[in-house]
Amino acid sequence: MTQPALLAEVTRGDILESTHTGHAVIVSASGEIIDAWGDPYRVILPRSSCKMIQALPLLESGAGRNLSDPHLALACASHEGEPRHVALVERWLGDLGLDVEALLCGPEASRVEDYRDEMIRERRAPGRVLNNCSGKHTGFLMLGQHLKAGPNYIALDHPVQIAVKAAFEEVTGSPSPGSGIDGCSAPNFATTLYGLARAMAKFAAAVEGTDARQTAMVRLREAMMRHPGLVSGRVASCNDLMSSAPGQIVAKTGAEGVYAAILPEKKIGLAVKASDGAKRAATAAIAALLVRAGVVEADNPKIAVWLEQPIRNRDGILTGYVRAAPAFRA
Amino acid sequence: MTQPALLAEVTRGDILESTHTGHAVIVSASGEIIDAWGDPYRVILPRSSCKMIQALPLLESGAGRNLSDPHLALACASHEGEPRHVALVERWLGDLGLDVEALLCGPEASRVEDYRDEMIRERRAPGRVLNNCSGKHTGFLMLGQHLKAGPNYIALDHPVQIAVKAAFEEVTGSPSPGSGIDGCSAPNFATTLYGLARAMAKFAAAVEGTDARQTAMVRLREAMMRHPGLVSGRVASCNDLMSSAPGQIVAKTGAEGVYAAILPEKKIGLAVKASDGAKRAATAAIAALLVRAGVVEADNPKIAVWLEQPIRNRDGILTGYVRAAPAFRA
Repeated sequence: MTQPALLAEVTRGDILESTHTGHAVIVSASGEIIDAWGDPYRVILPRSSCKMIQALPLLESGAGRNLSDPHLALACASHEGEPRHVALVERWLGDLGLDVEALLCGPEASRVEDYRDEMIRERRAPGRVLNNCSGKHTGFLMLGQHLKAGPNYIALDHPVQIAVKAAFEEVTGSPSPGSGIDGCSAPNFATTLYGLARAMAKFAAAVEGTDARQTAMVRLREAMMRHPGLVSGRVASCNDLMSSAPGQIVAKTGAEGVYAAILPEKKIGLAVKASDGAKRAATAAIAALLVRAGVVEADNPKIAVWLEQPIRNRDGILTGYVRAAPAFRA
Repeated sequence: MTQPALLAEVTRGDILESTHTGHAVIVSASGEIIDAWGDPYRVILPRSSCKMIQALPLLESGAGRNLSDPHLALACASHEGEPRHVALVERWLGDLGLDVEALLCGPEASRVEDYRDEMIRERRAPGRVLNNCSGKHTGFLMLGQHLKAGPNYIALDHPVQIAVKAAFEEVTGSPSPGSGIDGCSAPNFATTLYGLARAMAKFAAAVEGTDARQTAMVRLREAMMRHPGLVSGRVASCNDLMSSAPGQIVAKTGAEGVYAAILPEKKIGLAVKASDGAKRAATAAIAALLVRAGVVEADNPKIAVWLEQPIRNRDGILTGYVRAAPAFRA
């Protein structure tokens, strides 16, 4: 088995304090590996990085035909629980005739400190609608209604998850070797890192009007790029990476150090997995790969801050950096 | 260079989701390596794991002669900012005729959710006294007064840090190859993982009355073991590990995946560094090494929960585990 490659280095003063290894792969529209580091065939759980795949049946079924771009961006989001995210999910649920208790994702506080503190002051408990996956879950609920299926849409044998799994296996190009329960309680299907990047490449190369799948891919891809702040939040790497080159990058993080990216103009897909699950490493590596792919410059401020992440201590003193490994930056 | 060894595995369902590698070493009272995994000569920043070393000059100088065990435990603590921690640091500062503004550690909120929420409701800002290192800093201030030195006790050329560095190099057994600025703004001196474990072994084998150093080591070691809740907090791995076998284990975590332990009855020192800086991995590994060293059983509930750490999602569903690597558990 190919050993993981160096993804990122963490320094403090002159000392190399920590290192992150992992796997990365760039795949073409035809499914060829263009470049790889570590083991592209490592089996991974893509976690939230595959939300655009999980949203495909919502559109392909026709259930989400009339959804706006903001709805679709939220269906693919790991949002920060800002008021705009919450309001849109609540409105969407209302349009479906459902209340927030229909959501089967667990309760979460807002990830934005100001809003979290406001909730604490007002003694409002963490809520399911604030869960960073509440848009995905609302999409699942909408698909479930369309399929006239029952309320437990996160069960592996529920029509919604059967549809998600089928789409997932088709776009990754191989049967899923297993699944885990995600942070939001929905199933998360495993694939290889290559499989994830291959799916991203299909999203990148999709042409509207070709067929239901490609049309859905284009709609989701474009919705995410038009609303990067709905896909993540004001202060979040996905927002920065997508905003660094508007219309050229879809970037989506997943828990445990996964990052996926779709580059429509280049018609390639990218995927990164930090072996140890570190988000800081996956983010540095994907930022470096976006530069390497030629869609953005390293000195673009929205990229630079992730390529070389300053570490500040509790008094705001700069104590070190997380830096993408030189091999990615060459 | 010796490659890092597997420290811990993270599973979700049947999928091996992430892995952590790193280095570990067990050292005898005479400074011999008893057992090692990965590279024991890896240079590390011990971060908070070496607070008992940083507290040595406080006692050896005579400055802290009359300090109680709770004070000494706090001087070695990464506390959680519970009211008892804050009250004791404030009282200690008052006894020195200082107020909290003398502290040069940055402001922090309580790490205990209930107290943090209370602070937010009462609109109390994060404070320096709540910084997890405020006990160490108060010890530095006391030593600084004793040495009649100036207020900037975190400067590398301040008499306090000169004394800390000298003690650090003596107990680790070699010159420090550099330093970084810690999360609390104090210098943190580098050493090898072996150096850290060697120092821990000296703490383990120290006999009261032999000399000022050994007497100080015994006082700090005993104070930490008597007050594990002051060294960390109610819900913290250091507290659990020390409480699992009262009087037999000093365990101290440090940022970026460091863990050190002193086993007085066995007269050995232990140190672990997760290459990637992951606390969850270092904690699993040190728990396994404590079992391996024969000071505690694997089924002791305070150990078991760190050997095999359940991962629960936002709805409380068990989704996976962080488990110490089999090599440590053999």
